[in-house]
Amino acid sequence: MPQFINKRQDIVTQALDGLVRASGGRLARLDGFPHIRVVVRADWDQGKVALVSGGGSGHEPSHAGFVGRGMLTAAVCGDVFASPSVDAVLAGILAVTGEPGCLLIVKNYTGDRLNFGLAAERARALGRKVSMVIVDDDIALPDLPQARGLAGTLFVHKIAGHAAETGLDLDAVTAVAQSVIAETRSIGMSLGTCTVPGSPREDRIAAGMAEMGLGIHGEPGVEQVAFSDADNAIARMIAKLAPNLDAGNQVVLLNNLGGTSALEMSVLAHSLLTSSLADRMTHLVGPAALMTALDMHGISISTLTANPAHLEALAAPVEVSAWPGLGAVSPVSVLPMPNGIRAQTASASANGAVRAVVTCVCETLLDAEGDLNELDAKSGDGDTGSTLAGAATALLAQMDQLPLNDRSSLLRSISQSLGQTMGGSSGVLMAILFAAAAEADDTGKSLTDVLEAGLSRMQQIGGAKLGDRTMVDALVPAIAALPEGISAAAEAAREGADRTAGMTRARSGRASYVSAAQLSGHVDPGAEAVARIFAALNRDA
Amino acid sequence: MPQFINKRQDIVTQALDGLVRASGGRLARLDGFPHIRVVVRADWDQGKVALVSGGGSGHEPSHAGFVGRGMLTAAVCGDVFASPSVDAVLAGILAVTGEPGCLLIVKNYTGDRLNFGLAAERARALGRKVSMVIVDDDIALPDLPQARGLAGTLFVHKIAGHAAETGLDLDAVTAVAQSVIAETRSIGMSLGTCTVPGSPREDRIAAGMAEMGLGIHGEPGVEQVAFSDADNAIARMIAKLAPNLDAGNQVVLLNNLGGTSALEMSVLAHSLLTSSLADRMTHLVGPAALMTALDMHGISISTLTANPAHLEALAAPVEVSAWPGLGAVSPVSVLPMPNGIRAQTASASANGAVRAVVTCVCETLLDAEGDLNELDAKSGDGDTGSTLAGAATALLAQMDQLPLNDRSSLLRSISQSLGQTMGGSSGVLMAILFAAAAEADDTGKSLTDVLEAGLSRMQQIGGAKLGDRTMVDALVPAIAALPEGISAAAEAAREGADRTAGMTRARSGRASYVSAAQLSGHVDPGAEAVARIFAALNRDA
Repeated sequence: MPQFINKRQDIVTQALDGLVRASGGRLARLDGFPHIRVVVRADWDQGKVALVSGGGSGHEPSHAGFVGRGMLTAAVCGDVFASPSVDAVLAGILAVTGEPGCLLIVKNYTGDRLNFGLAAERARALGRKVSMVIVDDDIALPDLPQARGLAGTLFVHKIAGHAAETGLDLDAVTAVAQSVIAETRSIGMSLGTCTVPGSPREDRIAAGMAEMGLGIHGEPGVEQVAFSDADNAIARMIAKLAPNLDAGNQVVLLNNLGGTSALEMSVLAHSLLTSSLADRMTHLVGPAALMTALDMHGISISTLTANPAHLEALAAPVEVSAWPGLGAVSPVSVLPMPNGIRAQTASASANGAVRAVVTCVCETLLDAEGDLNELDAKSGDGDTGSTLAGAATALLAQMDQLPLNDRSSLLRSISQSLGQTMGGSSGVLMAILFAAAAEADDTGKSLTDVLEAGLSRMQQIGGAKLGDRTMVDALVPAIAALPEGISAAAEAAREGADRTAGMTRARSGRASYVSAAQLSGHVDPGAEAVARIFAALNRDA
Repeated sequence: MPQFINKRQDIVTQALDGLVRASGGRLARLDGFPHIRVVVRADWDQGKVALVSGGGSGHEPSHAGFVGRGMLTAAVCGDVFASPSVDAVLAGILAVTGEPGCLLIVKNYTGDRLNFGLAAERARALGRKVSMVIVDDDIALPDLPQARGLAGTLFVHKIAGHAAETGLDLDAVTAVAQSVIAETRSIGMSLGTCTVPGSPREDRIAAGMAEMGLGIHGEPGVEQVAFSDADNAIARMIAKLAPNLDAGNQVVLLNNLGGTSALEMSVLAHSLLTSSLADRMTHLVGPAALMTALDMHGISISTLTANPAHLEALAAPVEVSAWPGLGAVSPVSVLPMPNGIRAQTASASANGAVRAVVTCVCETLLDAEGDLNELDAKSGDGDTGSTLAGAATALLAQMDQLPLNDRSSLLRSISQSLGQTMGGSSGVLMAILFAAAAEADDTGKSLTDVLEAGLSRMQQIGGAKLGDRTMVDALVPAIAALPEGISAAAEAAREGADRTAGMTRARSGRASYVSAAQLSGHVDPGAEAVARIFAALNRDA
């Protein structure tokens, strides 16, 4: 499985340097590469309680991505899914711990507990005040004496971070962290495993199944369950969480384990916030990737009692771009549709000459249906004739409702009719031409000026230029010749249409995907339609 | 390929409702579901120029995720990878456009151009001031007359959003957007395709290859290139971009197409900011998922001239959590390692009685090596004896350097020695015991109190309780009996060790993975070591 990395052993050091470079000067790192990988706040003055977390890498943005004012002071980063060494943790502690002391926030994995624990002892021996909390928010294995630390760790980072930022002392910050841990629960579910750099991807989840109760290192879940859809997945997770929740309202953190698309995450947010626990979910963090397992296609849900102190701490601003903020959950605010979407109908009016012109155009298109389809089949899907004939049939049927004696209204009515009945790109383009012509229409303006305004807007939006082998190649010369009379216009349209047979490189529309050899010698069907319309109008004039 | 969705036709509406629910009341939507899917700012008062964007879904957080003060006013969302209808766009325009007018920001795809274009005509016919810009930042196909719109669109959203927020009029906001488009370039590269809901995933990229010059709908790239690593991938993209850049410094946007892990994104940021163009990249947006192609494992790089006006607009705060902010690129700030990582050596001192005790303990462990290995083989990997013997050998060799006449220093020295020489979890745990004992040591404290403090800290960090079938089961009763004399302690240690043979459920350490039948009748090797040590000390006393 290829990945965007360089040498395997450089992944973490390069990723951390990338993070530091991209931090806008907010972050720095210790001079301990390659073995000691510690990211610290660049602006830290040791004046408050320091918060140090970390663990194996592969959980980004945890933990280095949460270093910043209001959250962590330093992150100590091990190899992918491996605890950092005692020396690395000690370096992190010593680098940031001043007189107020340091709280270590450690996820409940043996390696992390031990290495952070011994580092804490060594830091104490060097005269530092250090306390340590163990996050064990996983509820997947109720009988396990040592529950794992999952994304609920973010609640601890944020709330303890706020406590430290407001100047509480080490005992108070530690007590805050302990109280958050006591009230945090998490459960995860996944549709796939993760790709550990340099290792093949394990494929242990059968089609139609999902793993529930999983950790953040690709370890198998507690159980495989049938997977049907997002609503059911959330319902299963909620069923696991519900009996473990403390009473009262909950803040919910919806975490992307790394490989779930943003579209799915929003669908899952919808499922979560309409689930059986929705009434108690008053606040939400995410959906966001906060504690990942590399590229795992899965999620976790973490909950925390929504008391006022927790909410205030979670809502406090931080200088950490990976923190998505806290939002109050609200029902979907639905605004009424604006007026004007449905087109206004102009009053019908009579004008025999105009009626004759419109009728002539429509009947010409009906007569040409077969020929135009045949031409289109050379370069497209063979439906130009039918598309135009359909629009013509519809317009003929609407003839008695059209404002035939009001040019501007008529142009707008034709635009509306074509937009609704013609379909496809060409229908929209013709609708734009007539709408823009209507907009340009004004007392004293010539039909040529009006049509040219429409044509120009259509070209601007559609992008077709002269020579691109479209109807524009007939329309432009025809309209330009209109002041000289309909006969000149018909002649110009025909010449323009015929020129398209020599255009072997279509640069617009569907024909742009067809080879020159296939196009050569055939007139563009749109241009042919224009030529036939002007010819008919000239004949009837 | 399973996904966290419900019915295919509900994906976009449910995702948008999820987004609105999770917005903390910042967003609302129009009452047009299922066909008209428009997300708008809930706080919008039509007092400034409105910014409307949108297009097919599948690019989240684009575009609805960027609706908020300082960026978009409304987003019009089509089906996955399909343009929204004219009616939907018109609804979006009419819902947010007041007297100052509305700018449509449209990516350069035919469907979007036409539907947004016709909607603009209809909105104008209804008396609204509407302008429209087309984003065409893709440089993959230099000869294509209609370059695609890619993640560079975010520069337009942000900078035009700032212009509108500061109160510029429609012409001025439009001119700003046009100038950004003129100076924006993008190129993408991917290692895989994306999973369109309901469709099988296409697998057209051979091992060792990547696609360059791709779009954001899973369409094939302009070319397949050999893929070796992140540095090379960035170098290839930079080589494409460089000849297309305007002079001067650049803001770079590093976009995750959806399926690239955060760890890889940071490695890529490192590659980018150490590339041949690094000197000209003064500012960075991301790395972040801004314009995705569902779950595509790829990235895009977008550049924009870094002039002061652009930088000011990009840095302005917004109420949009998907916007990652602008950072000035800086060299990696490397702080010196703190002092104290290397353990201080205590001054050696002599004490014959203490030397005899330490020697007795070490020699007992050396004698027990084979027996302990044998016991460990019943429940583990059979190395407990060798691990302890190795630590004992090392300690004996250090005897003349130990501060034998200073109890606290001696405990700390033993901790350091065990931490360095013993290896594994047990080495760290023993190091914690002796370090915490040293910390607790004080004039007048009994050895029992000091050892109990160490033991308690070790249990707290390691998590082992009485009855968990570990050395704790011998250590706790032995140390508790120490005030009654070494003979009582030895007896208690032996009883405690023997009890572990009846403990068939290990709850801690490696034996927790072994079945009850395999454990039954065998003493835990760690507890056995403790019992033998106390027996030897009693014998020599």
